[in-house]
Amino acid sequence: MIMNKVFAIMVYIGVPVSVTGALLHWPSVLMFAIYCLTIIALASFMGRATESLAIISGPRIGGLLNATFGNAVELIISLFSLQAGLHQVVLASLTGSVLGNLLLVAGMSFLVGGIKYKRQKFNVYDARHNSGLLIFAIFIAFVIPEIFSMNLSDRDTVSLSVGISIILIVLYLFALFFKLVTHRGIYQDREVQQQEEHEEPEWSRGKSIIVLALATIAVAYVSENLVHTFESVAESFGWSEMFIGIIIVAIVGNAAEHASAILMAYKNKMDIAVEIAFGSTLQVSMFVVPVLVLASLFFEKAMPLVFSVPELVSMIAAVMLTIILANDGETNWFEGATMLAAYIIMGIGFYLL
Amino acid sequence: MIMNKVFAIMVYIGVPVSVTGALLHWPSVLMFAIYCLTIIALASFMGRATESLAIISGPRIGGLLNATFGNAVELIISLFSLQAGLHQVVLASLTGSVLGNLLLVAGMSFLVGGIKYKRQKFNVYDARHNSGLLIFAIFIAFVIPEIFSMNLSDRDTVSLSVGISIILIVLYLFALFFKLVTHRGIYQDREVQQQEEHEEPEWSRGKSIIVLALATIAVAYVSENLVHTFESVAESFGWSEMFIGIIIVAIVGNAAEHASAILMAYKNKMDIAVEIAFGSTLQVSMFVVPVLVLASLFFEKAMPLVFSVPELVSMIAAVMLTIILANDGETNWFEGATMLAAYIIMGIGFYLL
Amino acid sequence: MIMNKVFAIMVYIGVPVSVTGALLHWPSVLMFAIYCLTIIALASFMGRATESLAIISGPRIGGLLNATFGNAVELIISLFSLQAGLHQVVLASLTGSVLGNLLLVAGMSFLVGGIKYKRQKFNVYDARHNSGLLIFAIFIAFVIPEIFSMNLSDRDTVSLSVGISIILIVLYLFALFFKLVTHRGIYQDREVQQQEEHEEPEWSRGKSIIVLALATIAVAYVSENLVHTFESVAESFGWSEMFIGIIIVAIVGNAAEHASAILMAYKNKMDIAVEIAFGSTLQVSMFVVPVLVLASLFFEKAMPLVFSVPELVSMIAAVMLTIILANDGETNWFEGATMLAAYIIMGIGFYLL
Repeated sequence: MIMNKVFAIMVYIGVPVSVTGALLHWPSVLMFAIYCLTIIALASFMGRATESLAIISGPRIGGLLNATFGNAVELIISLFSLQAGLHQVVLASLTGSVLGNLLLVAGMSFLVGGIKYKRQKFNVYDARHNSGLLIFAIFIAFVIPEIFSMNLSDRDTVSLSVGISIILIVLYLFALFFKLVTHRGIYQDREVQQQEEHEEPEWSRGKSIIVLALATIAVAYVSENLVHTFESVAESFGWSEMFIGIIIVAIVGNAAEHASAILMAYKNKMDIAVEIAFGSTLQVSMFVVPVLVLASLFFEKAMPLVFSVPELVSMIAAVMLTIILANDGETNWFEGATMLAAYIIMGIGFYLL
Repeated sequence: MIMNKVFAIMVYIGVPVSVTGALLHWPSVLMFAIYCLTIIALASFMGRATESLAIISGPRIGGLLNATFGNAVELIISLFSLQAGLHQVVLASLTGSVLGNLLLVAGMSFLVGGIKYKRQKFNVYDARHNSGLLIFAIFIAFVIPEIFSMNLSDRDTVSLSVGISIILIVLYLFALFFKLVTHRGIYQDREVQQQEEHEEPEWSRGKSIIVLALATIAVAYVSENLVHTFESVAESFGWSEMFIGIIIVAIVGNAAEHASAILMAYKNKMDIAVEIAFGSTLQVSMFVVPVLVLASLFFEKAMPLVFSVPELVSMIAAVMLTIILANDGETNWFEGATMLAAYIIMGIGFYLL
Repeated sequence: MIMNKVFAIMVYIGVPVSVTGALLHWPSVLMFAIYCLTIIALASFMGRATESLAIISGPRIGGLLNATFGNAVELIISLFSLQAGLHQVVLASLTGSVLGNLLLVAGMSFLVGGIKYKRQKFNVYDARHNSGLLIFAIFIAFVIPEIFSMNLSDRDTVSLSVGISIILIVLYLFALFFKLVTHRGIYQDREVQQQEEHEEPEWSRGKSIIVLALATIAVAYVSENLVHTFESVAESFGWSEMFIGIIIVAIVGNAAEHASAILMAYKNKMDIAVEIAFGSTLQVSMFVVPVLVLASLFFEKAMPLVFSVPELVSMIAAVMLTIILANDGETNWFEGATMLAAYIIMGIGFYLL
């Protein structure tokens, strides 16, 4: 595929330029752009390596691999923001990831797919399973600490956040166990299942592991530098750090998923497109977020699981809209347009904040 | 039909009496009652003229006409309230229109229809399409400015309101395009469709246009006078202006729709009854509200899209209840009773405010 | 059944020990435990007596009996808390009852049943009917006074609470009328219906009435004593009174329902398990709560229908999760695990408050 070649060139140019620019102290805004593009390209390599490893390891271990490395880039960027003490940016970029996956990725997929096909369908059981988890993650696990923290001391808020984070990760593992072991294929067409079992990996096990390791190191290096440009970029463009986190970082961190979800929708493979958009949202909210909360205990200041009110309300509204539109397992271009309209409204709101 | 004759008599008496009473400064409370009854009668004429024009113009232009003139009365009353600087009354009457259409009109239809028929059905695709738009309008377009405005300057709140209003109108036009062009009849029974195509208009094109023009002028005149009686009426009865806006004005402005929706439900034509109730709600929230926000830019003080908390919460609760009850495309008398009970609770609340 | 023998022994020992302990002023924490166990055992007797009476009286009167006496224990405990002026404890224990029935009872049933059966089904019409009522009770009847009371005087808040309580009770009676008279069996399989009609009562009418009367008197006596131990227990364990109300009292008051719902799920009789969990929730929120609000008018200080914010938000979140998971009429172990995870999160939150 031509896209893969473009990404390869971007990596071969982007990584050395990132190193050079960082050493020579090139202007922040320029470096911000270079870092973003390099990360997008590296993320696509990580995605392909994970995918190959997943196919080689069979569906169970593969599902686990996808569920852990699927949002590795976001996790890495956030870890460096966490280390820099930028709690607001961490929570903002996670919010942005949730909003971006739910409204932008799913919305674009439904719109692009819907322009080609009048009605597109996907597995209604998966839709309902995902809806339940979205409600659990956003309405229970994120809302409860927000509300209770108003009457709690800082220490108790951290305790509550840690408790909830552990429960989130455990339930996420249960969800994988449910999907990959106890109820594997039960809600699926036999055909889809067989088709899945005959995929060929792109790379061998060895190559995949090497690519994954190298790309991870490179992403880590570039991400750390990226985080330190936020302040100057915010100043140059008159953007708030929240806007950078919610809109820019989220788009960069999820660019690879965006591309493949839309491609799948265009090919009328809605089950995969939906799985990328919603699966990624659940991974961020049930795995990346709690891992970061727990990781923050090892840094200077613990990060409580307390989003700002506009962030939380936006996520709640996005989940409500998505569930109502997607729960029937059917989409069309107008549903996509509705989701994009919601994303734009939130984008304007965060821009003005 | 006998109702039409009654409305005709009401217009022939109501309009001259309104003019006379206004000139002779009759007591406000009396004039308030006369204005309300006259508007109800005029609205029924506007409805019949719009209906005839819609049938003559064919389904596409007809749908557009219905979508624009369907709530012309509310738009006109609100424009005069806007001009008088009564932002609270404007938002209250729009809230009242949403609550009235969702809970009172739909509730009465389900109850009356349900007393005659054990189970009534309507198109489940339309129900879901409407649910998605209701969530978009209330949970996204109305909630976001409410929450974000807490941290925004007045100027930025107006910018956000203007941006959202434009998006609402564009998406409303997209929804019409979706329903009337790209997906016309796709989710519909062939029978219903053919039946719709064989309707006869009540009046000719010329007569319809003249009636529409005259009735609009009369409504405008009476509405302007009506708005100026609010203060004295509020004082006389010990009602708040909010209660007048939410309950009284909303019932007056929607009386015609109330009557026809209930009639349709009684005839077991639930698709039409539901379309009137929900279509009218969407028209108010996605067209009338944003048009008023944009229109307010030409008046002294811009009106931001920020409802009071009780108004917004009531709309959210009403949307949740309606979606849960109506999303399965089936109704019975008890669902109607539940919606009416919700309306009464909100009515008591706004009365006490 | 062995369980019945255990409960009988608990009553024969528990009641005299409760009386003795109260007279001799045994330590509060010990008495708290004894009272709790005695009430659990007495509640199971009341349940069996009500059940027998319901079968003897036929489905209509039986449904009414179940709907009134089903949560008699909670009602009695709450009346004594009300008399002691402990409004916070009353509302907390009712919140706990709602959360416990929705998340703990239903969650355990789904989990236990789901470990034995891959997919369990129940009547989807009942699920939707219950969902509508849950939304009405929590999102309308509980949310409206919460929000409106912020701008209302204390007196008006009580008026609103009384109005809503009357509407709740009336709608609850309508719901019974709908289920037992106008739409009896309409949404049900013929088989299930016939099966229900051939049940044998455990006790005769006379024995049932005597057992019900004696157990009610005993529960009342023990409950009154129980309420007076709250303060010391809270102190001894470092628990807040809210935690005692929401978690401990709710588990004690609902222990009998817990046991039978889980047993039914294990036997794959999901219709009954779901009916116990959701029916009990609706009974508490649409009957017990409003009766207590009205009863409070006869005590020193009227109790407005205003929950604390964490209580209300928890109930809203619980209802959302339950509706999304249960509305399709199908369950599995993972849905049960999700509900239990939500319950644990809320439990931690209330413990820390």
